[in-house]
Amino acid sequence: KKRKLLSVDEYVDGILSGNITLLSKAVTLVESAKPEHMEIAQEIIVRCLPHSGNSIRIGITGVPGVGKSTFIEALGSYITGRGNKLAVLAIDPSSERSKGSILGDKTRMEELSGNKNAYIRPSPSAGSLGGVARKTRETIILCEAAGFDHVFIETVGVGQSETAVHSMSDFFLLLMLAGAGDELQGIKRGIMEMADLIAINKADGSNREKAQMARVQYRNALHLFPQKDSGWDPEVLTCSAISKTGVTEIWDKIETYRNLTVENGYFARRRSAQSTFWMHETIQEQLKQKFYNHPEMKGQIKDFEQLVLNNKMSSFVAAGKLLENYSKLK
Amino acid sequence: KKRKLLSVDEYVDGILSGNITLLSKAVTLVESAKPEHMEIAQEIIVRCLPHSGNSIRIGITGVPGVGKSTFIEALGSYITGRGNKLAVLAIDPSSERSKGSILGDKTRMEELSGNKNAYIRPSPSAGSLGGVARKTRETIILCEAAGFDHVFIETVGVGQSETAVHSMSDFFLLLMLAGAGDELQGIKRGIMEMADLIAINKADGSNREKAQMARVQYRNALHLFPQKDSGWDPEVLTCSAISKTGVTEIWDKIETYRNLTVENGYFARRRSAQSTFWMHETIQEQLKQKFYNHPEMKGQIKDFEQLVLNNKMSSFVAAGKLLENYSKLK
Repeated sequence: KKRKLLSVDEYVDGILSGNITLLSKAVTLVESAKPEHMEIAQEIIVRCLPHSGNSIRIGITGVPGVGKSTFIEALGSYITGRGNKLAVLAIDPSSERSKGSILGDKTRMEELSGNKNAYIRPSPSAGSLGGVARKTRETIILCEAAGFDHVFIETVGVGQSETAVHSMSDFFLLLMLAGAGDELQGIKRGIMEMADLIAINKADGSNREKAQMARVQYRNALHLFPQKDSGWDPEVLTCSAISKTGVTEIWDKIETYRNLTVENGYFARRRSAQSTFWMHETIQEQLKQKFYNHPEMKGQIKDFEQLVLNNKMSSFVAAGKLLENYSKLK
Repeated sequence: KKRKLLSVDEYVDGILSGNITLLSKAVTLVESAKPEHMEIAQEIIVRCLPHSGNSIRIGITGVPGVGKSTFIEALGSYITGRGNKLAVLAIDPSSERSKGSILGDKTRMEELSGNKNAYIRPSPSAGSLGGVARKTRETIILCEAAGFDHVFIETVGVGQSETAVHSMSDFFLLLMLAGAGDELQGIKRGIMEMADLIAINKADGSNREKAQMARVQYRNALHLFPQKDSGWDPEVLTCSAISKTGVTEIWDKIETYRNLTVENGYFARRRSAQSTFWMHETIQEQLKQKFYNHPEMKGQIKDFEQLVLNNKMSSFVAAGKLLENYSKLK
């Protein structure tokens, strides 16, 4: 049975009044692949845009096992306890395969999911990283319009999705464990380089000393990276999400970062750069997809690949001929 | 005064008979931006393609001051001394500004430039990395057709150009210095990760011990990277290009690498992957350039950027509208 769609006005009024049910329904439209849903979603987004932007967007990453959910619960409860509203979103392009490993099961965050000032939304589960990232970025707009002044965007520590999260966050937080080298945790240097703060989790019991040592090591490692445009010196702190220690200190750092970057203008500059980045990213992605998905081109591309592989044509001539044929098609 | 162009046959016959003057003239056509030169260059390349490929292509990088020219002289003299023919090419997109810092001055390599089995060609000096890389890749084809069975492709240690060189090399050699940490030498981890061999140069005199220590450190660092598809374990060796020690050992390793990868099929697989990589890379680059350079689009792109920056339109809707307008233009 198909549910009837509401009017754009109904969705927008609901969102702006902070109605979670209508927010959720609108996010579902954002995530939908049906043309009629996409159209109404875009109208809702345009209407919500002027009411968006008034939040701090925090990207959070770390490999499975690092304690991300527990950390988000701890930090999220602290933030909402101070009277703020928190939306927890995620980017996990693999979630279709893994049946939604990230946030798929809200019960992983028992405390937050029962908290009326928190809104938890699992990763959109369809398709490419580009598609998933677009949906999450648009969901941020709707959440902000609904009054959420804090947004977490969670991801897993695998590379490409971190870059996507970084490009829609104001602050990027990397969770690590002591004891395991960063290489063992599968964290690439490039991800460490993006971090504004590294939090070494599970710094409790007999682990505390190891965590302190790791803190010194990571601090030294961070000093080798070039100075950030934000003027911010990335920090390394220890915490224990499960025993809720070190969490307020992390929050204090994030607030210090916000104050610094709002004042020196970096906060606004980065937001602007991110908006145009996503516009150009989408253009380039679409240009590529249109070319490669054109039914007339698919066979030709294969044929020219063979010519190149058999040394009958140079890579550049093959590219030129394919583009020439493509431009005649339209 | 304009020199008259020769016929395609004349260029091709000259190249295939190993005539260096005609090879040089053909490379000049490859590097030219004039349509009539580009057309004849492409004909020459297509004719040379079946005679190309029969070489080992070695990418060589390292920051200024590491002793690259001296190293290339030492290794190159050794190779040509064994009866081989060596072409030394370069990729340096900055060479227009710096008036050809790489190989621009052939006198930097006195020994090789007087060697009739060596052909030294400075980096093409025009424009974008993509353009420079294309020209160098096509020059490899001509050199191989002219009987050069060894090709060096030199670059500077700055990131993007290394990736280009790596994507047209069979073997990637990174020159380093002892004493300075890799961070001080400006070598990114990603470049270390590409290396098949790290050679610590200037391991002479009082520097020898430091070089040995650096060798152990880099070896440990390399072990942290994931196993390579080639089945090859990257090596770290020390050498002194100026006193010509350690150079034959480096060459032995390169030969061992070649034997291993030819036998396990990786050598051919990588060549094929590189050919199609360059085809697709060129397609994507051209699709982008056509869009962004279209006279009707330039102003529109600016306008939509403003709408996005003023929160009047989402990044994704702006991208969609621009693409819609673009498709109507053609």
